[in-house]
Amino acid sequence: MNDVKLDILFHRRTPEQDDRERLICERCGFVDYENPKIVVGSVATWKDKILLCRRAIDPRDGYWTLPAGYLELNESPETGALREAWEEARARLEIDQLLATYAITRISQVQLIYRARLITPEISAGPESREVGLFTWDEIPWDELAFPSVRWALDHFCQTRDQPTFAPLGQSDAGAGGL
Amino acid sequence: MNDVKLDILFHRRTPEQDDRERLICERCGFVDYENPKIVVGSVATWKDKILLCRRAIDPRDGYWTLPAGYLELNESPETGALREAWEEARARLEIDQLLATYAITRISQVQLIYRARLITPEISAGPESREVGLFTWDEIPWDELAFPSVRWALDHFCQTRDQPTFAPLGQSDAGAGGL
Ligand SMILES: [Zn+2]
Ligand SMILES: [Zn+2]
Repeated sequence: MNDVKLDILFHRRTPEQDDRERLICERCGFVDYENPKIVVGSVATWKDKILLCRRAIDPRDGYWTLPAGYLELNESPETGALREAWEEARARLEIDQLLATYAITRISQVQLIYRARLITPEISAGPESREVGLFTWDEIPWDELAFPSVRWALDHFCQTRDQPTFAPLGQSDAGAGGL
Repeated sequence: MNDVKLDILFHRRTPEQDDRERLICERCGFVDYENPKIVVGSVATWKDKILLCRRAIDPRDGYWTLPAGYLELNESPETGALREAWEEARARLEIDQLLATYAITRISQVQLIYRARLITPEISAGPESREVGLFTWDEIPWDELAFPSVRWALDHFCQTRDQPTFAPLGQSDAGAGGL
């Protein structure tokens, strides 16, 4: 998105008959009803190893993340998580169950992270990854993780690893603080 | 949103350096990156009774629904579900766990429906409800439910009613067909 153009043309004010500020185009009056965005991803395993991707794009270029990205229009969250694993790691997964929901409220992002298994161990870097790898718990590059929610998902995966079914964790940065 | 204005000014085409059609304003070039929308709601109980709201707004004015609505910016899904129960039924809830995720892919909507308990049985209709009520399973107005996903959530609630924790159902209209 062209943020410079947005800054110039769009201003925040409250439309008539509304009770919240919205982004309004001062040229044509278009009201952009911004909405929270959905990120879908997975903690995907092959035996005792976890799939991670080293990012080739900003933000956090060079740091390790889970395969995840924005849900597209007309896509279910499960299908989106499978698509992201393919795009970023050429990995083919089967979804097990929802691991957690994370609300990053300061940027209006809701993450749906699934527990999943790799169908085969063949993986390779997609265009948005520098490299991809399968890591045992002790091999995970803890100091080079891209985002706090990657750590959250790995921790919650570890806590529930031996449970065939469980209630997904619902976590919000409002409660976690410091993000 | 003013759909007439949208129809006149916005057209779908693929921006340069993109691979999907987007809504583009033909006056000022603004690209509206549409995203899936998140609905949050709950199956909330007082003892053996389930909270339902009879809608006072379109679509499906006069039909019964669960307290649910669009997640706002900077809001966690759990907070949003509590807000909707207050707005539509003046009900105060505590969230138990995520009951299900429903993907209505034809309209790019992802629903997060929680299992919840009423803290008190005091309820009353908010501005978007004609009336609200607490129903035993047999009293539910099955023929007057507003949306298929209300039926899905009630069914899944019934299936998991006796389970202290469970994996939420992930359901998509792509698999269900006929919607
Ligand atoms: Zn404009
Ligand atoms: Zn315009």
